[in-house]
Amino acid sequence: MHYLAAAISGEARVLLTLFIMLLAAKLMAELFERLRQPAVAGEILAGVIIGPSLLALAAPSEITDLLAEIGVIFLLFTVGLETKPAAIFKVGKRAAIVAVLGVVAPLLCGWLLMRAWGSSGIEALFVGTAMVATSVGITARVLSGMGLLDAPTARIILGAAVIDDILGLLILSMVSSMAAGSVNYLEILITAALAIGFTAFIALVGAPVVTRVAPRVEQLRSGEGIFIFGLVLCLGLSVAATYIGVAAIIGAFLAGMALAEGAEDAPKMHSQMSGVTEFLVPFFLVNIGMKLSLEVFRSPSVIMLCALVTLIAIATKLLGCGLGALNLGVRRAAQIGMGMVPRGEVGIIVAQIGLSLAVIGPEIYGVVLFMAVATTVIAPPFLKLLYANEAAAHDEIGPPDAGGIVTAKDLAKIA
Amino acid sequence: MHYLAAAISGEARVLLTLFIMLLAAKLMAELFERLRQPAVAGEILAGVIIGPSLLALAAPSEITDLLAEIGVIFLLFTVGLETKPAAIFKVGKRAAIVAVLGVVAPLLCGWLLMRAWGSSGIEALFVGTAMVATSVGITARVLSGMGLLDAPTARIILGAAVIDDILGLLILSMVSSMAAGSVNYLEILITAALAIGFTAFIALVGAPVVTRVAPRVEQLRSGEGIFIFGLVLCLGLSVAATYIGVAAIIGAFLAGMALAEGAEDAPKMHSQMSGVTEFLVPFFLVNIGMKLSLEVFRSPSVIMLCALVTLIAIATKLLGCGLGALNLGVRRAAQIGMGMVPRGEVGIIVAQIGLSLAVIGPEIYGVVLFMAVATTVIAPPFLKLLYANEAAAHDEIGPPDAGGIVTAKDLAKIA
Repeated sequence: MHYLAAAISGEARVLLTLFIMLLAAKLMAELFERLRQPAVAGEILAGVIIGPSLLALAAPSEITDLLAEIGVIFLLFTVGLETKPAAIFKVGKRAAIVAVLGVVAPLLCGWLLMRAWGSSGIEALFVGTAMVATSVGITARVLSGMGLLDAPTARIILGAAVIDDILGLLILSMVSSMAAGSVNYLEILITAALAIGFTAFIALVGAPVVTRVAPRVEQLRSGEGIFIFGLVLCLGLSVAATYIGVAAIIGAFLAGMALAEGAEDAPKMHSQMSGVTEFLVPFFLVNIGMKLSLEVFRSPSVIMLCALVTLIAIATKLLGCGLGALNLGVRRAAQIGMGMVPRGEVGIIVAQIGLSLAVIGPEIYGVVLFMAVATTVIAPPFLKLLYANEAAAHDEIGPPDAGGIVTAKDLAKIA
Repeated sequence: MHYLAAAISGEARVLLTLFIMLLAAKLMAELFERLRQPAVAGEILAGVIIGPSLLALAAPSEITDLLAEIGVIFLLFTVGLETKPAAIFKVGKRAAIVAVLGVVAPLLCGWLLMRAWGSSGIEALFVGTAMVATSVGITARVLSGMGLLDAPTARIILGAAVIDDILGLLILSMVSSMAAGSVNYLEILITAALAIGFTAFIALVGAPVVTRVAPRVEQLRSGEGIFIFGLVLCLGLSVAATYIGVAAIIGAFLAGMALAEGAEDAPKMHSQMSGVTEFLVPFFLVNIGMKLSLEVFRSPSVIMLCALVTLIAIATKLLGCGLGALNLGVRRAAQIGMGMVPRGEVGIIVAQIGLSLAVIGPEIYGVVLFMAVATTVIAPPFLKLLYANEAAAHDEIGPPDAGGIVTAKDLAKIA
């Protein structure tokens, strides 16, 4: 049946890849939970294991990238759903200080390190830029898994991640145009105005508008009104964010925040949304792991550079962001600093742009990729340790109530 | 920022396409619900409207195909979840008769029509084969939307669709090898044995095994145990089905059926699964609509052929399948016949194989595509009419309870 085989093999191979990714993610998550380690780290390592660098059972592709992107978009959307705008505004100033220090420190130290290593000025700047961008998805996943999204430091991390992304965009714009030989300040100004305007507009106007629209949506005939409305809003603002140049996840987070109050009485929506994220987030995590290339480890000097870049990437966020939150106490400052450590897919995207502009070579690209994956695997266990007290206190109050859903079991308990 | 623009545009364009597909689907679904028409037909028409043949806002691609495929896989999985194996076995003989008559009639009449039109023997056979394959996803969506998956005729349709798919596979194998010049009977025998063996094995052994495994899964630490187990089982059996040559949706349906008893006490799982399907099924429906090409309508004779092929495709399933169920009464026979009419993505896949083997020309390919989409849009309104009585009776008993979830509102009612 080779005619059929040819026709179906494309589809079958893609489905097989997805199956392997999901299975590996869930097995490693289970293993890590039993070892009392965060499932997130297990799922990223699952990607490393099944990916091209080890077993080569699956490889990242345009399709896994898209599923990963949709996964992290909905992850940030559900995080936004748990976040009232006022809670973020309240920590706004603190978040801004954390973000700025957390941008300056890695940019400066990354640049210095690469210059000392012998890189050209522009390559050093690009590596520094790749070290700026925090991927808040990983931290959000760890904290939501522990039921701690409402911790004060979690709010600061989320607010700082939004500001960090905008600052990262502007630095990337500037460095990219320097790489092309001339800096167009007007363009950068427009990018800045658009990014800040979009974020401020949605953050300020989004919630009141959505809260007014949501009850009408509930009356639509096509059922599941508020859930569908949430999906459309989330995708719509993610697309808008991407066109403006901000990461899609920032749009998704703002969409969730805008809907946070309107969806408060919609337990079914939270449960349905958790179905979407539980299915798609593993692709996001495994896909990051699959991108790790161990080919880069061909010479001891490169291995050394990987270690140094990763170490600096961790230290600069930990100390930079931590410094901005130091008056909250050392432990909270460390929570915030560690929460900003994962670079994940954002660092990978910056590295890809650098490679496509030919300002960083394939070797340094491999180093940045290693840093992006390594920071992402290393942070979750430390986050879990740093938040252990809060988690214990939280468990005493009672576990999170599964998205507000009252199940038949709860009913039985009441009766 | 054209460097950035280039880097982000691919991602942004894909997200934009998905956003347009979802928005169009939901707007048309709402419009059709208000007109008391089935939402399914609205969502397929949404695809026709935004697709290349009309507004050209979006086009089918490898990525939309994949999302569509995952969507229909999980749709059939949730249908399987509502279907106990015993209920299908009970109607097995009836379903087999319905399937066989519903395969013979379109194959024969399609072949005759195309021979009369002047096609070569092998082209006529391929068109007949494309007219054989029922896409049960559309009917399943309409019936589950009406809460009628447990109607006796729904069981017969589901059982017949499984048998129909296996027969369709065997005919496609045979016709494909005829197109290549020699029929390898041994290969076809192996295909038959594999397809039947796989289906029978999962149908018979799946449920007892899963029912024994499911309680252990519930005790896993990584949470959401039964939901994740369902996702993995669904994807795994879909992949297995594809490798054997049966449609992935058959594997997904069998996976759902195997889990039907094990998941009975898992209301949260049903709700989470409905989140996945509500998000992904629109891509399945819109993607079918987007595949319609109106380019084919360049000559009156082709328009005539489109009309004839579509008419024969509808009449042969309606009468063929209906004949097999006639002793249940005319209305029930008509329900079953109409339920088997949509050819959807299965017909499209057969046409694509024919095109890739160069046994059908691009013009006839366009005609078959039109038939596949047209049967899929036409059937739902008639299905809704034919099932109106059952739906009314069902509503008197009470609407479906949203997947068994007890919401805070229900609690309030009780109190």
